[in-house]
Amino acid sequence: MRAALVVTGTEVLEGRVRDENGAFVAKSLTAAGVSVVRTTVVGDGLEEIITAVGEALASGVDLVVTTGGLGPTHDDRTMEAVAAATGRGMVLDDHALAQVNRALTSVPARASAETRQAGARKQATVPEGSIVLPPAGTAPGAVVPHDGAVVVVLPGPPWECTASWDAALGVPAVADIVRGQSGGAPLELRMSGVVESEFMDAVRALDPEAAGLVVGVCARPGELEVTVRPPGAVADAFISGLGEAFPGSIFSTDGSGVEQVVGRLLAARDQHLATAESCTGGMIGERLTSVPGSSAWYVGGVVSYSDAVKQAALGVSPDLLRDHGAVSAPVAEAMAEGACERLGCDWSVAVTGIAGPGGGTDAKPVGLVFVAVRGPAGTTVRELHLHGDRERIRMRSSTIALHLLREALGG
Amino acid sequence: MRAALVVTGTEVLEGRVRDENGAFVAKSLTAAGVSVVRTTVVGDGLEEIITAVGEALASGVDLVVTTGGLGPTHDDRTMEAVAAATGRGMVLDDHALAQVNRALTSVPARASAETRQAGARKQATVPEGSIVLPPAGTAPGAVVPHDGAVVVVLPGPPWECTASWDAALGVPAVADIVRGQSGGAPLELRMSGVVESEFMDAVRALDPEAAGLVVGVCARPGELEVTVRPPGAVADAFISGLGEAFPGSIFSTDGSGVEQVVGRLLAARDQHLATAESCTGGMIGERLTSVPGSSAWYVGGVVSYSDAVKQAALGVSPDLLRDHGAVSAPVAEAMAEGACERLGCDWSVAVTGIAGPGGGTDAKPVGLVFVAVRGPAGTTVRELHLHGDRERIRMRSSTIALHLLREALGG
Repeated sequence: MRAALVVTGTEVLEGRVRDENGAFVAKSLTAAGVSVVRTTVVGDGLEEIITAVGEALASGVDLVVTTGGLGPTHDDRTMEAVAAATGRGMVLDDHALAQVNRALTSVPARASAETRQAGARKQATVPEGSIVLPPAGTAPGAVVPHDGAVVVVLPGPPWECTASWDAALGVPAVADIVRGQSGGAPLELRMSGVVESEFMDAVRALDPEAAGLVVGVCARPGELEVTVRPPGAVADAFISGLGEAFPGSIFSTDGSGVEQVVGRLLAARDQHLATAESCTGGMIGERLTSVPGSSAWYVGGVVSYSDAVKQAALGVSPDLLRDHGAVSAPVAEAMAEGACERLGCDWSVAVTGIAGPGGGTDAKPVGLVFVAVRGPAGTTVRELHLHGDRERIRMRSSTIALHLLREALGG
Repeated sequence: MRAALVVTGTEVLEGRVRDENGAFVAKSLTAAGVSVVRTTVVGDGLEEIITAVGEALASGVDLVVTTGGLGPTHDDRTMEAVAAATGRGMVLDDHALAQVNRALTSVPARASAETRQAGARKQATVPEGSIVLPPAGTAPGAVVPHDGAVVVVLPGPPWECTASWDAALGVPAVADIVRGQSGGAPLELRMSGVVESEFMDAVRALDPEAAGLVVGVCARPGELEVTVRPPGAVADAFISGLGEAFPGSIFSTDGSGVEQVVGRLLAARDQHLATAESCTGGMIGERLTSVPGSSAWYVGGVVSYSDAVKQAALGVSPDLLRDHGAVSAPVAEAMAEGACERLGCDWSVAVTGIAGPGGGTDAKPVGLVFVAVRGPAGTTVRELHLHGDRERIRMRSSTIALHLLREALGG
């Protein structure tokens, strides 16, 4: 089964907002073994949406999913565009109108009654013959069958989009396409500490192509994400071979991120973690607490951006800061020690570095970062020399710190 | 001038990795007044890239920009695809080969010499007649003129892509398209505390269409992003009208985020800020420190995820936690107070709440969040009732907290 996505929204097309919806639906489809062949991003204009949906249908895919453009205002025209692309009229759906009106009771009524009523009627007007998806926010979605294919129309706000996609999966016409395809879902591995070129050397030696496998690799900051398809005994043997070539590098085979892996390792030991962050500014804490239930193993941390906070909140000694500077191995170690002691934890991870663009010197250039992990068996410090811009240096620092912690936890 | 983008990469198409490059180039082009008409995301396959580039050229745009697929391995085929789509052969560029070899000296040589050499030659092989862009990492980009249009070929790793795009803007054929268009760049406003429907009511009253303006609006968590084009006296008058309709809501007219606005306000007063975060887990610190130079006004903070850390690091009293619970106005206020006192600051912002999906009760449901801002004139606490998933609740909490701080700072 093959699918094409049409993401609408001038704010996405012009790069002001990152697309989350297309990525979410694509991931869901890929996991179900449906092949996503193309995603088209267009603006809010009626004609451009009609063209994109029409081209997607003409390309012979089984499923077209659109996101965005279902709001109450005049520039939300995706329903109209799908009706035009599938040769249907538009009808007001009374059931949908009642749902929209019910949803509106829970949002602040600062617009005029007239505006709200016009908006509700607009949002409840759908292509004739649609199966209407109940609104997660105020916008109903729709499933529109067309010529042996199906168009699914989803709202733009990400949490509404995910809820409406779940609802769409309950519609038989959609389920027939998406379900029962899971035999084709690729296996997804995550590896750390391996660069792409040495990975490709290993792949060449294992020759997966001769075994009928398709191997994809994507370099992310500090990690490689590898997909292997089709799943089965041959793929499993290839993955075993990779594991032998890079012992300890494969840290996830179920799509989990390093945050989740670290959390599971801590929970299994019934131990707790604290963080001490300088250049990452809270990013490690934010990543750890993105995992639901992280309070079971993460107690919190200190963002010690200034030297004064390193001293006051983590007990780093002024002498150490003066003798070695804030960006140094001894200070990273003292930050990790202070986090464990002050916050009462078995484990801590600390980061101090120069993320740039300013603040670098010849002796301590931008990209110099020290990471320390403290655990019951002692402290490990690693010196990093990273390239790239501020965001990349911060992201890689946090990823490498989490992997150092994972390794110390034996994961 | 009109442009179309082709983003390549199976990892992007399948939703495992968010596209950053297309968004970056689109934003750059839009800012320069070039209209981006479509972005197409395709996988790594040669044929699908050829088709997407061919369609983009056939659509009559002035500029086509591709991202990704310039690596050393067999599944990086964008140069080959652009050559095919523009009817050119492929040639090894000696100058580019020297540049790639020089760049390779700075990356760890863990792959075999043979693999590296083959990879370097592959990366230095470009469509005939290309203007080669120097590699930011190891992959040269290219500018390929075609039939009055220009194709710009950029590498996939985001920091290499941005550097290569800068280099491309220095090539006259590209500069002719991108420069001198800035009269058309839309004005970009950011507003807080206004919902989309009341915004649209105000817009209807101001009737910008009759004045020849195109107004776009995009709802982001806790904010609205508004674009007005074309720029000029008419647009300025419309924006004044908006400012009168929503006094104090327009917080940015130059693309700055609330983090930057807060930083400028603090720097102007020569005052300092600390954070105390529970459910946001470091997100506010991370957002503040994403601003280069933030150490001038941000000292750091405490991620007080557990009650023990709220007591130990912020001095929140056990009685307060017992009587009111960790998610309460008095605890938010005490966290803000503790952050100011313990970290020695004029200002602090504190957040405590229930982000879900677990942890909610009838009395304190998921989405209940308290935000406190402390400054020289006292403390303000706000109670929030937020909807959506964990990520959305955390993101909105951090945005609303930053705006409460901005308002307290008089911005």
